[in-house]
Amino acid sequence: MAVQTLPYNNLIHIDRRLDIPVFKQVADGFIKLIENKKLKPGVELPSTRQLAQMLKLNRSTTVAAYDQLNIMGWIVTSPRKAVLVAHKLPIITPQSFNENVNKNDSNPFYNQINTVKSDILSRPYHLVINDGYPDARIAPLQILADTYKSLQGKYYKHIGIISEPSIGSTLLRTELASFLTQTRGLDITEDHILTTRGAQGAIFIAAQMIVKPGSKVIVGDLNYRMANKVFEQLGGDLIKVKVDENGIDVDQIEELCRTERPDLIYLIPHHHHPTTVTLSAERRRKLLMLIKEYTIPLIEDDYDYDYHYESSPILPLASSDHDGLVIYIGSISKVLSLTIRSGFLISQPDFIWQAGKYKELMETRGDLLLEESIGHLFQSGEMQKHINKSLKLYKSRRDSISQMLSTRLNGLVHFTIPLGGMAIWSIFDASVSLSKISKRLSSQGIYLNDGSFYNQGNDSLNGVRIGFASMDESETDEFIDAVVGCIDSGKV
Amino acid sequence: MAVQTLPYNNLIHIDRRLDIPVFKQVADGFIKLIENKKLKPGVELPSTRQLAQMLKLNRSTTVAAYDQLNIMGWIVTSPRKAVLVAHKLPIITPQSFNENVNKNDSNPFYNQINTVKSDILSRPYHLVINDGYPDARIAPLQILADTYKSLQGKYYKHIGIISEPSIGSTLLRTELASFLTQTRGLDITEDHILTTRGAQGAIFIAAQMIVKPGSKVIVGDLNYRMANKVFEQLGGDLIKVKVDENGIDVDQIEELCRTERPDLIYLIPHHHHPTTVTLSAERRRKLLMLIKEYTIPLIEDDYDYDYHYESSPILPLASSDHDGLVIYIGSISKVLSLTIRSGFLISQPDFIWQAGKYKELMETRGDLLLEESIGHLFQSGEMQKHINKSLKLYKSRRDSISQMLSTRLNGLVHFTIPLGGMAIWSIFDASVSLSKISKRLSSQGIYLNDGSFYNQGNDSLNGVRIGFASMDESETDEFIDAVVGCIDSGKV
Repeated sequence: MAVQTLPYNNLIHIDRRLDIPVFKQVADGFIKLIENKKLKPGVELPSTRQLAQMLKLNRSTTVAAYDQLNIMGWIVTSPRKAVLVAHKLPIITPQSFNENVNKNDSNPFYNQINTVKSDILSRPYHLVINDGYPDARIAPLQILADTYKSLQGKYYKHIGIISEPSIGSTLLRTELASFLTQTRGLDITEDHILTTRGAQGAIFIAAQMIVKPGSKVIVGDLNYRMANKVFEQLGGDLIKVKVDENGIDVDQIEELCRTERPDLIYLIPHHHHPTTVTLSAERRRKLLMLIKEYTIPLIEDDYDYDYHYESSPILPLASSDHDGLVIYIGSISKVLSLTIRSGFLISQPDFIWQAGKYKELMETRGDLLLEESIGHLFQSGEMQKHINKSLKLYKSRRDSISQMLSTRLNGLVHFTIPLGGMAIWSIFDASVSLSKISKRLSSQGIYLNDGSFYNQGNDSLNGVRIGFASMDESETDEFIDAVVGCIDSGKV
Repeated sequence: MAVQTLPYNNLIHIDRRLDIPVFKQVADGFIKLIENKKLKPGVELPSTRQLAQMLKLNRSTTVAAYDQLNIMGWIVTSPRKAVLVAHKLPIITPQSFNENVNKNDSNPFYNQINTVKSDILSRPYHLVINDGYPDARIAPLQILADTYKSLQGKYYKHIGIISEPSIGSTLLRTELASFLTQTRGLDITEDHILTTRGAQGAIFIAAQMIVKPGSKVIVGDLNYRMANKVFEQLGGDLIKVKVDENGIDVDQIEELCRTERPDLIYLIPHHHHPTTVTLSAERRRKLLMLIKEYTIPLIEDDYDYDYHYESSPILPLASSDHDGLVIYIGSISKVLSLTIRSGFLISQPDFIWQAGKYKELMETRGDLLLEESIGHLFQSGEMQKHINKSLKLYKSRRDSISQMLSTRLNGLVHFTIPLGGMAIWSIFDASVSLSKISKRLSSQGIYLNDGSFYNQGNDSLNGVRIGFASMDESETDEFIDAVVGCIDSGKV
């Protein structure tokens, strides 16, 4: 086929004042000609030399233009080096992912993807009664942000960060080691610490290291829902053990050790979730004996250790002799703010090293800059100051909401004042429906979980955790008023 | 046993000037007496009333003291309500995790933990030749940090963040949707986007959704090592397909589709890792045809799309019609800085929603504050400005190091100037040993991978990626000088 001799000098407009390089203007011109069928698939185009003459351009420009057209699949070079419009033109109109949605309903791939159960808050509220979060408004977040900013500036002057191990910022781990030794009686070094994305991140990684399909995992009944989900996602079989006012039933665990040979125990001994009960000293001692006798690893989730209001907090199981079987988990998010995703996992250096390798698969490195910033908060004592300050404040918030619950909701909410933590486990009287209250509050822009987050199995507990730490006086008032209003309305 | 009548008023010292509450001083006093055997297990202690008289304290104080001793397991109450020193005393000396390490070598639990392969840089260097990282020094990190700080302050005035879905910050996803539409020809909304911890986080989550033990995963040979590890960790079987100068061999993939029925294809079509080659237009079209014909999901890792230097970048597979089978991955970390862990995963809303639920298991929520801050960078146009600026700078850095490699290392390094990306895939001549060069540079405080990161299988490629984007002129000079020095020394 002969070279098609279009008046390219008229058809391809070049404007040297434009920002767009000339070679690109030429290429774009050809693309237009092909798109509106002026140039059909298979037709031969002028050589770069001919084109350069027609358009009065330097030949290197026409070469560059053809290069681009070629790499984009618009033109091909024939065996005899002729330049032809490609027979299969590249698909140029971007396809909408939306358009594909229907196809995908019938697309087998979408029936195969691994699914996950979850709970997501789907609408905004002006007041959220949470599960037990800290009050970020009183946390030293400005100081944290200042540090973050100044580190951001300095960080790359030195290259150290690249050689930080994936177990986390050395500064933060070193600070944590001494902080945890002082507050929890753990005798550890930074080698025992993996920094994580909050306690949840620590649960996730610890579970990844231990749980295999079919693993038997002992958990409380009730238990922290998001932990159960992690174990189930990994194919673990949950063995649920009753929790009473003294914590989990250790006699039943002993029985299970004999009969079932569990692969893992997950516990929240200090302030159990959701009930907030504390494991009794007797049971703690027996449990330690058991895991050593049967060599069963135990994940001790101690996410709100720092908030204990009566007497002094109870030292974690991890501070006792446990033959390295206790994997200890804590949270910095729960001390500072929900948006600061920071926590830690404590175990033997060999376990921590493996966990760090797993963390690499998840995110290469952690957010070292944020970790370093938090490390500085500990180093300067700001963190400890904040903990002491918030401890006092949360205690008074606990006391005042407890009093409101008993005086203003006379007997309709059953609860025990928690020794620690940031929430009150509140069981609503059978005569009122928590889910109805939740619905009515929602219409007023107040979020209160309807209890479904805490129901495990099909039964409804009619119970919810009321996070008091994050609510100031007026917010607490508004919440209590709203609940009283619901109940007085008689419609719940 | 009779009440032991020790002179408690002399033995228990109370100092009201101390910060320590009196009840705690009393409890601590008893603990000392028990520890130094003045009070033996089983002995009866005075009643709270008697003790109050002896110590001239309010009874509520002695009650509080005994409460604490009880909860800590130091004392027990006998059936006849007598207070006795516990028979089993609580373990009080914190046990060192270190002391347990030896025990654990023989501890079966430690032989069972799931292990992970990894590569960690174990010592600091003053100059690190990386795999292809951006130069954080020129990124708008101060602006990012300013935004982060101001948001930190404002964030909790409203509670919206709590109701952000776990698929990520709505602001960032909205900004990304329009940015990706403009730059990649993806026609998507924020519902198609999951924010992740860098591209690695996106690979990890996508793999979790698709790969099951025994899944057949087609990857390039060579391939990005950390992706292979994720698939292997999930029990996937890697099927390695040769990569030549036109990208992965699509004919072999076609053959595999017929014979092996693969479950997933993982590709880096734009700038393949490690070789940086670009998949040819013909192969791209055929590949799209294949995945649709055989309904095979394809993960398109396009982590450095924004850095393409010759003509315009090639639109991703995800911008063509793919029946929703292409899962598109990109990185913000690769544009800004290694410490900013931020990336995204693009797919059908139903897939994204499931992936978001999985993300909840990993970290509850993402770092929404950082995500919002990055969202503002896009909104203000700072991000786009930075990309244009860095694109020019990196291109010149690529050109100058390419020239140095060819002129100063005359023929000892074989490479092709990459069309894009931030690294040069450099194969050292068989006459010199990369691992020896690496060792010698290391002794000078310069890190250069010895090639082991890129070797897959046992063979040594004697090749390494030389990240040029993060090195300024003097750093590049120092590196080249050092390599030349090694070679001239004749000891490599």
